[in-house]
Amino acid sequence: MMSRPSVHPVDAPSLTNDAAAAMPRVRMKDFQGMGGTLGGLLLRLCQFGFAVVSLCVMATTSDFPSVTAFSYLVAAVSLQSLWSLLLAIADIYALLVRRSFRNPGLVSFFTIGDAITSTLTFAAACASAGITVLIGNDLDRCSVNHCKRFMSATAMAFLSWFAVSPSFFLNFWSLASQ
Amino acid sequence: MMSRPSVHPVDAPSLTNDAAAAMPRVRMKDFQGMGGTLGGLLLRLCQFGFAVVSLCVMATTSDFPSVTAFSYLVAAVSLQSLWSLLLAIADIYALLVRRSFRNPGLVSFFTIGDAITSTLTFAAACASAGITVLIGNDLDRCSVNHCKRFMSATAMAFLSWFAVSPSFFLNFWSLASQ
Repeated sequence: MMSRPSVHPVDAPSLTNDAAAAMPRVRMKDFQGMGGTLGGLLLRLCQFGFAVVSLCVMATTSDFPSVTAFSYLVAAVSLQSLWSLLLAIADIYALLVRRSFRNPGLVSFFTIGDAITSTLTFAAACASAGITVLIGNDLDRCSVNHCKRFMSATAMAFLSWFAVSPSFFLNFWSLASQ
Repeated sequence: MMSRPSVHPVDAPSLTNDAAAAMPRVRMKDFQGMGGTLGGLLLRLCQFGFAVVSLCVMATTSDFPSVTAFSYLVAAVSLQSLWSLLLAIADIYALLVRRSFRNPGLVSFFTIGDAITSTLTFAAACASAGITVLIGNDLDRCSVNHCKRFMSATAMAFLSWFAVSPSFFLNFWSLASQ
C-alpha cells in the first residue's frame, strides 16, 4: 500500500490541471504526419493504397515476368504495401489508446524501415519508368505492349514513394531533434 | 572608438584560453563528413570523381542519345559533378580559412541541393540499370550494344549516389539538432 497524504490542500488539483493543459503546448515534437497521429495514419493509408494499386495493375499484365525491372517493381511495391499496412495498424492502435510513439528505439526502427522501403520503391519506379519510356518513345512499340498499364503502375509507385517521404523525414527529424 | 579597460587583471587571459580550449569539446556538432571538414572534402571529391567517370564512360558510347534514360543519366551526373565540385571548392576554402559552415541558411541550402542532386543521380542510375539489365539479361543483345560501358556508367552513378548520401544525412541531422 502506498502512503497518501490525508490532508489535501485546496489548490493542488487546480495546479495539476494547469500543468496537464500546458503540457501539449510546451513540447512541440508531436506534429501531424508522425507515427501515432491522424496525419501519420492518412499518410500510411495513402502509401498502402498507391502501392496496392501499382501492384495490381502491374501483376495483371501478362508479360511482366519477362522484364526484370517489372518483376522487381512487383516485389518492391509488395514490400511497401506490407510495411505501410503494418504501420497503419500500429497508428490505429496508437490513436485508439491515445498514445504516441516517443520511444527513440521504435522511432529509429520506423525511420530505417521507411528509408529501406522508400528507396526500394523509388528504385523500382525509376527502373520501370526507364523501360516504359524506352518501349514507348525510343522504340515506339506500344502497339505490342501494355504501355498504359506499365505507365499507370509506375506512376502509382512514384506516388507511393511521395507519400513515404514525409513519414521518413518527420521521423528522422524527430530522431535528430531529441 | 570603443572604450577599453585600462587595467587588465592578471588571470583574465588564462581564463579566455581555458574557454577557447574547452569550446571544441563542448559543442559536438562539427564531426567529420560535414561541410568544412576534411572528411566532408573527401566525400565531395569521391562524389565528383565517380560522377565524372560515369559521365565520361556514358558520353563516349556512340548510341547513348537514342535511349532517353541514358541521356538523362548524362544530364544527372553532369549536374552532380558540378554541384560536388562547387561544394569541394567551398570546403577547401573553409579548411584554408579554418572556418566551418554553421549558418543554418547555408546548411539548409547544402541539404536541399544534396537532396535534389542525389535524388536525380539515383533515379538516373536506377533507370539505366533497368535498361542495362533489360538489354543484357532479358533480351540478350549485348553483342550489338555497349553493355559493359552501360554497366560501368551505371555503377559509377550508384557509387556517386552512395557518396552523396552521408553528406546529405549529416547536413540534415545537424540542421535538425540545432
